[in-house]
Amino acid sequence: MQGNSQQQAYDRGTNIFSPDGRLYQVEYAREAVKRGSPTVGVRYQGGDDGSGVVFVAGGRLRSSLQVAESIEKIHKADDHVGVASAGHVADARQLVDVARRQAQVEQLRYGEPADIESLTKEVTGYIQEYTQAGGARPFGAALLVGGVDADGTPHLFETDPSGTPYEWEAVAIGGNAERIQGYLEAEYEPNVGSDGALELALRALEDAAEGGLESEGMSAAVVDDDGFREFTADELADAIAGHGLDGTDDPAED
Amino acid sequence: MQGNSQQQAYDRGTNIFSPDGRLYQVEYAREAVKRGSPTVGVRYQGGDDGSGVVFVAGGRLRSSLQVAESIEKIHKADDHVGVASAGHVADARQLVDVARRQAQVEQLRYGEPADIESLTKEVTGYIQEYTQAGGARPFGAALLVGGVDADGTPHLFETDPSGTPYEWEAVAIGGNAERIQGYLEAEYEPNVGSDGALELALRALEDAAEGGLESEGMSAAVVDDDGFREFTADELADAIAGHGLDGTDDPAED
Amino acid sequence: MQGNSQQQAYDRGTNIFSPDGRLYQVEYAREAVKRGSPTVGVRYQGGDDGSGVVFVAGGRLRSSLQVAESIEKIHKADDHVGVASAGHVADARQLVDVARRQAQVEQLRYGEPADIESLTKEVTGYIQEYTQAGGARPFGAALLVGGVDADGTPHLFETDPSGTPYEWEAVAIGGNAERIQGYLEAEYEPNVGSDGALELALRALEDAAEGGLESEGMSAAVVDDDGFREFTADELADAIAGHGLDGTDDPAED
Amino acid sequence: MQGNSQQQAYDRGTNIFSPDGRLYQVEYAREAVKRGSPTVGVRYQGGDDGSGVVFVAGGRLRSSLQVAESIEKIHKADDHVGVASAGHVADARQLVDVARRQAQVEQLRYGEPADIESLTKEVTGYIQEYTQAGGARPFGAALLVGGVDADGTPHLFETDPSGTPYEWEAVAIGGNAERIQGYLEAEYEPNVGSDGALELALRALEDAAEGGLESEGMSAAVVDDDGFREFTADELADAIAGHGLDGTDDPAED
Amino acid sequence: MQGNSQQQAYDRGTNIFSPDGRLYQVEYAREAVKRGSPTVGVRYQGGDDGSGVVFVAGGRLRSSLQVAESIEKIHKADDHVGVASAGHVADARQLVDVARRQAQVEQLRYGEPADIESLTKEVTGYIQEYTQAGGARPFGAALLVGGVDADGTPHLFETDPSGTPYEWEAVAIGGNAERIQGYLEAEYEPNVGSDGALELALRALEDAAEGGLESEGMSAAVVDDDGFREFTADELADAIAGHGLDGTDDPAED
Amino acid sequence: MQGNSQQQAYDRGTNIFSPDGRLYQVEYAREAVKRGSPTVGVRYQGGDDGSGVVFVAGGRLRSSLQVAESIEKIHKADDHVGVASAGHVADARQLVDVARRQAQVEQLRYGEPADIESLTKEVTGYIQEYTQAGGARPFGAALLVGGVDADGTPHLFETDPSGTPYEWEAVAIGGNAERIQGYLEAEYEPNVGSDGALELALRALEDAAEGGLESEGMSAAVVDDDGFREFTADELADAIAGHGLDGTDDPAED
Amino acid sequence: MQGNSQQQAYDRGTNIFSPDGRLYQVEYAREAVKRGSPTVGVRYQGGDDGSGVVFVAGGRLRSSLQVAESIEKIHKADDHVGVASAGHVADARQLVDVARRQAQVEQLRYGEPADIESLTKEVTGYIQEYTQAGGARPFGAALLVGGVDADGTPHLFETDPSGTPYEWEAVAIGGNAERIQGYLEAEYEPNVGSDGALELALRALEDAAEGGLESEGMSAAVVDDDGFREFTADELADAIAGHGLDGTDDPAED
Repeated sequence: MQGNSQQQAYDRGTNIFSPDGRLYQVEYAREAVKRGSPTVGVRYQGGDDGSGVVFVAGGRLRSSLQVAESIEKIHKADDHVGVASAGHVADARQLVDVARRQAQVEQLRYGEPADIESLTKEVTGYIQEYTQAGGARPFGAALLVGGVDADGTPHLFETDPSGTPYEWEAVAIGGNAERIQGYLEAEYEPNVGSDGALELALRALEDAAEGGLESEGMSAAVVDDDGFREFTADELADAIAGHGLDGTDDPAED
Repeated sequence: MQGNSQQQAYDRGTNIFSPDGRLYQVEYAREAVKRGSPTVGVRYQGGDDGSGVVFVAGGRLRSSLQVAESIEKIHKADDHVGVASAGHVADARQLVDVARRQAQVEQLRYGEPADIESLTKEVTGYIQEYTQAGGARPFGAALLVGGVDADGTPHLFETDPSGTPYEWEAVAIGGNAERIQGYLEAEYEPNVGSDGALELALRALEDAAEGGLESEGMSAAVVDDDGFREFTADELADAIAGHGLDGTDDPAED
Repeated sequence: MQGNSQQQAYDRGTNIFSPDGRLYQVEYAREAVKRGSPTVGVRYQGGDDGSGVVFVAGGRLRSSLQVAESIEKIHKADDHVGVASAGHVADARQLVDVARRQAQVEQLRYGEPADIESLTKEVTGYIQEYTQAGGARPFGAALLVGGVDADGTPHLFETDPSGTPYEWEAVAIGGNAERIQGYLEAEYEPNVGSDGALELALRALEDAAEGGLESEGMSAAVVDDDGFREFTADELADAIAGHGLDGTDDPAED
Repeated sequence: MQGNSQQQAYDRGTNIFSPDGRLYQVEYAREAVKRGSPTVGVRYQGGDDGSGVVFVAGGRLRSSLQVAESIEKIHKADDHVGVASAGHVADARQLVDVARRQAQVEQLRYGEPADIESLTKEVTGYIQEYTQAGGARPFGAALLVGGVDADGTPHLFETDPSGTPYEWEAVAIGGNAERIQGYLEAEYEPNVGSDGALELALRALEDAAEGGLESEGMSAAVVDDDGFREFTADELADAIAGHGLDGTDDPAED
Repeated sequence: MQGNSQQQAYDRGTNIFSPDGRLYQVEYAREAVKRGSPTVGVRYQGGDDGSGVVFVAGGRLRSSLQVAESIEKIHKADDHVGVASAGHVADARQLVDVARRQAQVEQLRYGEPADIESLTKEVTGYIQEYTQAGGARPFGAALLVGGVDADGTPHLFETDPSGTPYEWEAVAIGGNAERIQGYLEAEYEPNVGSDGALELALRALEDAAEGGLESEGMSAAVVDDDGFREFTADELADAIAGHGLDGTDDPAED
Repeated sequence: MQGNSQQQAYDRGTNIFSPDGRLYQVEYAREAVKRGSPTVGVRYQGGDDGSGVVFVAGGRLRSSLQVAESIEKIHKADDHVGVASAGHVADARQLVDVARRQAQVEQLRYGEPADIESLTKEVTGYIQEYTQAGGARPFGAALLVGGVDADGTPHLFETDPSGTPYEWEAVAIGGNAERIQGYLEAEYEPNVGSDGALELALRALEDAAEGGLESEGMSAAVVDDDGFREFTADELADAIAGHGLDGTDDPAED
Repeated sequence: MQGNSQQQAYDRGTNIFSPDGRLYQVEYAREAVKRGSPTVGVRYQGGDDGSGVVFVAGGRLRSSLQVAESIEKIHKADDHVGVASAGHVADARQLVDVARRQAQVEQLRYGEPADIESLTKEVTGYIQEYTQAGGARPFGAALLVGGVDADGTPHLFETDPSGTPYEWEAVAIGGNAERIQGYLEAEYEPNVGSDGALELALRALEDAAEGGLESEGMSAAVVDDDGFREFTADELADAIAGHGLDGTDDPAED
């Protein structure tokens, strides 16, 4: 997205509209989200395997000496809520902290866990303020907020840099999100259990990746009736290899 | 609306007038409203069917996997007050929160529900401040605030990005609003009950849409003496199909 | 009022003077007042009909479905004080709120109603601050503040965007104000009672309008010893028709 | 005073000096003072007629329907202190309020009336701050502060837009001030009583006016041992006519 | 001091250095000091006549009707401390107030009078902050702070617009300061008493003035063991005439 | 990294994104990190020698008279936590203070030492805020935070100027970091004890240095079960010489 | 240091980095330090003469009437700590006040004198904040902070405009610092006592001065076990003359 001179007249302040009603800084923040590696969320329900949400996040190791587990793109926000991010990592961490604090506040205030939707909307309200007030830039990160409400219903929400919440059955954010979303749209089925959801997420990521998936740097988690649980590195590597997604079965791809 | 260089001298600050007394940032915020999908409100009264206000909001699904119900453009602000929006979604949500908080405040302060007009004017006062003080941009959203007052009178107000309130019998905001308003002006009758109001709103939206209405992404609600009630997805789909507005009757339109 | 480049060097900040000592943003705010429809105030006293102030405000319906009564340009600020506005509607509403709050404050503080002049000057002081401090723009609205003081004297004041108060026997603000004022100057007599004052205001508005007056969108009120009272739509329509100002008697005007 | 490009580099901020040590915004505020009508103050003492200060202010009626008394350019700041202004009316009113509040504060704090000099310097200190701190413009108004101290001494001070106080025997501010001051310098005598002081002020104003003085829009007041007293419109008209200053005696002037 | 374009890149903000480490706004404030009339301070000690400091300030009457005594450029800051100023009068007054308040604070806190040096440094610290923090301009005034400490030692300090304190035996600030300082350097002797110090100051001022000194508008004061005392207008006129400095002895000068 | 004109449109505010979603000021802050001398951290564990983290920091003496020990680039943040820095020294010191204060806060709040990861994330959250809020620049420094948690596990984190935390087995920051990191990647083994870790760090630094290492200006420390301990200058010099890294064995290098 | 246009894009805000990671305003502040006269600090220890730090500061008299003692460039910050400065005098004074207040705070808090290093770092932390936060400029001054700790160890620190602390055996700051530092590097020996340290400092200053040293305007002090003591003007003059550094032995130098 390259700015022309007409655009440049309006794109350097968070608190101005362009003549056609656009907020360029918010659009540029969306570009920041696309610069990161992709993150996928898949909601499952209705099958024998119960209901829940699975997150899979890609990630890039800057060096073989980087500790892969430290690329934290999936976080536990509450016992029953996970948050996965894409985009500017430091921005995302601040938003995860907002979600965590808000989960505690709601627990304290109402004596029961926050439901996924209201938690999401606390975060999007926070994000919106950074797009309207002067003196700060928007957040260059998108979040997926997912989990199971007290009534057993799974929910998967996205927060975007404008502060708009979206609810999804399955969604990709970050780099290559459009292509991954296309795969999800073609293949999604709701009643596949957590294993099926994990497989779908991995296949969608693999479809957009060149040369197969490397489990190093990736992370995955599930939120179901038992709460939030991260997959271990071995579980994730096994799942990738078990579905033939590690590139070893795919010599034709260059 | 493209800016020329004369205009550009005055259009980047919320707190300056142009030489001819215009506030360009407010005008650009109105353009932001037009970028969204349309929302229609229709007030009915005087017929056998009682009095009330019907809202119908269009909406765009970003993907077949998006949960249609999550495109929330119609909100309950109080038992007897609904709010529908058009334009920048994240901005609209903030204004809906203002309306809700104010409804609670008035209930607490006066021991009775806020009337529709005073609630609307609290919101427009809030909006106006963002058009005058520096350091923030105007809200890029318009609201319809409607319901039935304690004395049984239905009211339907619009708030625009300048912070001006307007009262309507029937009104369209958002994308294609002018054409839809034309349809409403031609066909509106006050005493048609909620079914008639819903039908009018749908026909007006259909008239401006290409290829019929898709109930996915749309939402509708009514506020009458019994309070605020959203139509279910099935009710809405039935109404669209029942009136032949789903495009299936209209093969000639390409 | 088009800005040249010399002027543009000084016209974008509320807190700077031009080399010849002008405040361009205040002048542009006056242009904003002229963009609205006209509002007229007429003070009467000395006749058999008592003393008071009559307001008549023009108005434009954006659509036949707009509720005409909602074009509120005349407001009751206190039992014995009315406020009529011209210009940017949202700005005017804020100033009306200032006048109302101040009337309550003075009532509470001194145990008697605020007199018209001191109420006006509270408002003009508030307006002036927006022309001097940085970070905000001036108010793009003018007010007429009128009523009857405790001693029975009627007063009619204008507040302009610079924050200057003016007292008048009869005055027009808003669009076409100069031509309407000319009519008032030629025809004004003080001792005509409220009916005569209303007729004068209507005739002055009609003189500047093309094709006669339409009562839809217009509003009128009187403040006399009995307090503030708005004319009903029927009363106003009757007055317009009764004086032959609805254009039906005037086929020659195109 | 037209700005050239060298000057324009330094004249748009209240908080910057030009390379030659000038404060252009303060100089432009002085131009704003000159745009208004003139105001004259004359101190008298030493004659049989006691001591005091006389103020006479010109004024322009915007219309024959404007209430002349409402052009308030002379104000009572305390029982024994009057304030007259020239320049931006709304700015002047704020400064008059500062003087009034300060008079009350000093009365409360010390149990006796503020003396004229210290009251003036409270006002000039307030003015100065608006010439140094950023975020606001200077006041575009000058004041004359005059009256009789507790010891019977009359004082007449000027405050200018830089916040400098000057003490005078007789002084003109506002439009045409230089020519009027010349007249005062030529004709001033201290021991003439209030009548003589009023006559001098009127003659000086007349000398600079074209076609004689019109008492409409003008105002005058005296502060002597008996305190502050405004001349009535009739008294003022009589004084003007009595001295042949109403233009009727002066057919030669074109 | 005219700015070139290289200079203009750095001279409009108080909070930026130029590439060669200069603070242009402070330098321009020094130019503002030079625009005023000169002020001289002379310290004397060691003679039979005791010790002290004499101040003489020039001044310009704007009109023959200006009250000469009101050109206050010499102020009593405490019983034993005088302050004389040059430059922007309104700025200087604010600094004099700072000195006065600080003298009271130190008296209250320590139970004894502030010594001249620490009082000076409170003022220079205050001045410095206006050269570093954004949002305000430097003070366009210089002060001389002088008097006799509790131990009988006389001190004479200068504060400049950068906030640097200097101590002097004799010094000139304001217009023509360099030439006057040259005279002082040539003629200064410490043990001359207050009469000698006054004469030296007057002769130095006369040397730089064209056509002799006019006592009107000038002021002078001495601070010695008996405290601060202003010379009366007559005393000053006598001193000027007595030393033949009033221009009457100097017909050759044109 | 030289800016072109497209880039310059977006690179001077911390609170704006470029059209492609980059934060130039953060990227420039990373350049500031590269301007300093390199710092290396190496984590060791699993060998007979226990677990811990070794830091080695290069440094430049500005003169032979500078006290080498004063080039403090390695700091004790808590008994069991060390912090090493690269980049802008003054910025780094502020961040070290943040880490220290936070370690105290966590000790007080939870009664036990902060774990390395949460301490790091307090610092990165602090850093992030300086990249988003207006009115300040990002920190031009990177930190290594390392030590041993209460459970005996060693951790080594990096904080970068965006506020992103990274965990490492071995890492180089500052000047020449890429080349040094390459050496670390090639030679790193985890189970080498503190001596082996120190040797690896020194060899990596030597590989990128020209002409061998000079222990003057360098510093080193280890954090193991016994807590934080700096190597003395002699120990460090011995280690450099003992491994033949002082350039004396390497005459071929020019 | 002249700015080119590439540089000018980044050099006017304290809160922006240039593309190569430089902070131009900090660099320009260093230029401000170089504009002043030089200041030298020399630490001595290990000889029979005890340990301590000697400061010598050059200075320029603006006139023969300036009181030389008032050029205060060496200050006592605490009984055992001296502070000498170079650069912008008013800025330096503010920093000296910071050091003094902090010495008092540490004395009160811990019941013992602050050690030299922690006192220095309080000052550098204060300086750093002015290089990062917007709205102010950096300090255009460098300090030498020196003295003897409670354990008898002498320390000599420098604070530079970036807020970095450096420890030295001997160091020059201000004008000509590089040449003077070269002399110090060539001649420094630690165990020379206070006399030797004073001689070294004077010789280094003389080496860079043209035409010998003039004791007028210069100042010197020593901090040793007995605390802070300024040399009298006579002692300093004697030392200069005694070592033949007053230029009288050097007729060849023109």
